Amino acid sequence: MSVTLNCDMGESYGNWRFGDDAGIMPFIDCANIACGFHAGDPMTMMRAVELAAREGKSIGAHPSLPDREGFGRRELRLSPEELRAAFIYQIGALAGVARAVGKNLNHVKPHGIIYGMAARDMALATAVAEAAKNFDLPLFGMAGTFHESAARAVGARFVAEFFADLSYGPAGELIIPRTQSAVDIEKAAARLERAVREGKVEAVDGTLLNVSFQTVCIHSDPPNARDVAAAMRRVLDTAQR
Amino acid sequence: MSVTLNCDMGESYGNWRFGDDAGIMPFIDCANIACGFHAGDPMTMMRAVELAAREGKSIGAHPSLPDREGFGRRELRLSPEELRAAFIYQIGALAGVARAVGKNLNHVKPHGIIYGMAARDMALATAVAEAAKNFDLPLFGMAGTFHESAARAVGARFVAEFFADLSYGPAGELIIPRTQSAVDIEKAAARLERAVREGKVEAVDGTLLNVSFQTVCIHSDPPNARDVAAAMRRVLDTAQR
Amino acid sequence: MSVTLNCDMGESYGNWRFGDDAGIMPFIDCANIACGFHAGDPMTMMRAVELAAREGKSIGAHPSLPDREGFGRRELRLSPEELRAAFIYQIGALAGVARAVGKNLNHVKPHGIIYGMAARDMALATAVAEAAKNFDLPLFGMAGTFHESAARAVGARFVAEFFADLSYGPAGELIIPRTQSAVDIEKAAARLERAVREGKVEAVDGTLLNVSFQTVCIHSDPPNARDVAAAMRRVLDTAQR
Amino acid sequence: MSVTLNCDMGESYGNWRFGDDAGIMPFIDCANIACGFHAGDPMTMMRAVELAAREGKSIGAHPSLPDREGFGRRELRLSPEELRAAFIYQIGALAGVARAVGKNLNHVKPHGIIYGMAARDMALATAVAEAAKNFDLPLFGMAGTFHESAARAVGARFVAEFFADLSYGPAGELIIPRTQSAVDIEKAAARLERAVREGKVEAVDGTLLNVSFQTVCIHSDPPNARDVAAAMRRVLDTAQR
Repeated sequence: MSVTLNCDMGESYGNWRFGDDAGIMPFIDCANIACGFHAGDPMTMMRAVELAAREGKSIGAHPSLPDREGFGRRELRLSPEELRAAFIYQIGALAGVARAVGKNLNHVKPHGIIYGMAARDMALATAVAEAAKNFDLPLFGMAGTFHESAARAVGARFVAEFFADLSYGPAGELIIPRTQSAVDIEKAAARLERAVREGKVEAVDGTLLNVSFQTVCIHSDPPNARDVAAAMRRVLDTAQR
Repeated sequence: MSVTLNCDMGESYGNWRFGDDAGIMPFIDCANIACGFHAGDPMTMMRAVELAAREGKSIGAHPSLPDREGFGRRELRLSPEELRAAFIYQIGALAGVARAVGKNLNHVKPHGIIYGMAARDMALATAVAEAAKNFDLPLFGMAGTFHESAARAVGARFVAEFFADLSYGPAGELIIPRTQSAVDIEKAAARLERAVREGKVEAVDGTLLNVSFQTVCIHSDPPNARDVAAAMRRVLDTAQR
Repeated sequence: MSVTLNCDMGESYGNWRFGDDAGIMPFIDCANIACGFHAGDPMTMMRAVELAAREGKSIGAHPSLPDREGFGRRELRLSPEELRAAFIYQIGALAGVARAVGKNLNHVKPHGIIYGMAARDMALATAVAEAAKNFDLPLFGMAGTFHESAARAVGARFVAEFFADLSYGPAGELIIPRTQSAVDIEKAAARLERAVREGKVEAVDGTLLNVSFQTVCIHSDPPNARDVAAAMRRVLDTAQR
Repeated sequence: MSVTLNCDMGESYGNWRFGDDAGIMPFIDCANIACGFHAGDPMTMMRAVELAAREGKSIGAHPSLPDREGFGRRELRLSPEELRAAFIYQIGALAGVARAVGKNLNHVKPHGIIYGMAARDMALATAVAEAAKNFDLPLFGMAGTFHESAARAVGARFVAEFFADLSYGPAGELIIPRTQSAVDIEKAAARLERAVREGKVEAVDGTLLNVSFQTVCIHSDPPNARDVAAAMRRVLDTAQR
């Protein structure tokens, strides 16, 4: 089975625009659509699922901590029960919106800082995995972290992902900036190619990490996001030919 | 088929309590559960569906205009597309939460001022009815208003309701206060009995209105809500024996 | 006294950018800064007052109906008491933020749809004027509307404004789109020049309206906002030489 | 100078009621009024300052982390700059509302979990102290923590407080529950009397802590809050006679 390309989308809010969804959509396989807690609102979600459906792409839920002002990138300590309920709420909301375009959801991928928090905390990871399991959806996450063990523990499918446009710390943790600058496409393409062919990625300090994945994540907000998407698509198509 | 008793519930928010859900639940048939836009939040919704499921009651979505501070009781002019998306979002969210207790939704009932706005405006009513239809759920509303015609137009089932604890204006419109005071139970019971037996209700100005309904609505927030619920239950049980 | 140029600013929110504040600021006299209810948040407000202070511009409060998702451009029916309190809250918040850069507020200018609602409704206009009066600040508004009469009634100073980048209806009412497209600069400059020199503006249907004003408003969100600002500055500087 | 009694107030929100403000107000000296981020909204704040002014009580700002759903009791990691701006926004807003009843603010007291977070973190405490200093207001806080050192560092006055209705951990830290249950008044009165007379309080594990304070804090939400207030008032009046 080939490695897919996924991208966070639908991250506009009200009158505010964010990310070149229309430009990126043709190059990806799976759209992770914001569910209103860090970004997105009912109309934005409706437009995002319409776009994904029109282009025949898979739709995934991209739930977050409830922190619009911080774009889901500030640590907020919900209890596991609160987190589980918050995620179920968001996934259900997007499932309803997707139904309006005749689509079912394909997966769940946590957004922002809760992604990393859950990777390091079994109780939070279990809450996240239970929310995915509630809808019988696979969970996108990082292999070898609590994402994976929690998914297995609750009986949710797990899909490992690689981050093409983020840096890794020496212990394999992601370094997530509050705002995205332009991606060095050549470097990102080389990293991805090596990751696909050799299963290796170099951390910021030079440590060589083993990576295993079935999907590759990019983001919609760097200024050159469309070109990043096109380049990563080419790498995947070429490396997997 | 017998007339059912429905009640708006799950209208707490965060640390704030609202309504005697546990006291009322045993007396009703259908719980209309707030979906987070005028009241409710993921944890409150989870507790509300758990309570309803435990007592074997039907769960309906109680979506609202997005106005928590005004409790959905202030006129806010969404476009029909915005309203449709907002309702689909909310119903989907509650459907997801209900799934966590193994339940499907039973119906949709609009909350607060949008209930009356939609009754008088075909475009808004159509948006509401389409949201219900998106989930193949019946719409609770007022017979003879755009609720009914919009439901028929979009192919959604329509369930007419009678309001036991609100006053009717001379044209049959509801008079919805921003906050609820204690209900005069004897008067409400007499009104309901007459409505069930004769299909008539007296408006605030003495006008005699014809009413036709399959369900009766009460609210959870009057101080004597539990006693109102018990009394309305008795009226329905007796009048329909 | 010369006619000033004012612009709505600080309308970003969290991670979402809106308007070219830095590009426009050099050309204007007064920055109307969003106060968190339709746009803006504490950090965005802080950056906006810092920018205005650095460039030596006057800072005004730009309060709104509480509707972030609708950018304050959807009708929401607050009671006059609620509106007064909401505006006092917002103006006070910005006054506090401005104090952090050693500045006092210069004026109050209502944002979005409440601007037009208050123009047509004395009770709402009085609430707005009382909020300005609470801080002894002048109110920017439209001459000949309830803005002006309410300001006089409560003893607030009134500053009449002209809109350089919006169209007027036949009765002098503003036509406010939900989102702004590029302004036809030549046309806007000609309109403004005529307004300044002759006190006339042509409505969308050709009606010639009399306009009287001490300040001219532009917006920060058209794609060519910076050029609009520069052009309007030139018109004012030339026409008033 | 005598020890004062302060209480958190104005913690209703929209239609939701919280705390017996009217019952407690006669017994206290200083009302710490919520500023809209964890509780309160413009109308609630207006009513709270009106009540305080009518009874001749001092008004303080009670700013919080932006987390209404968690009532400001969940850890949320704002940067120090974000925290400073958020507090300045809230204090300014309340200062504006207080002005509507002809009152100036008397002090600033952080709400909920940020109180404890700042006590343990100099950068956060400095942000809080700078916000108080921005308005030339004293900061209520815990003696011997970063509250005190940050206040001194930025030149804000510091007023030490004792918590009559919360438990202390062995290191002097407060134990803040998400919801309040009834206070054991006899025990609380005995603790306060000892604290006032001897400057000692017993922690939950029996450790005897030294406490030094100029003000005593109670909360408005325990079911017996009014009786707690009356009892603490008596203790202070008696012990200080």
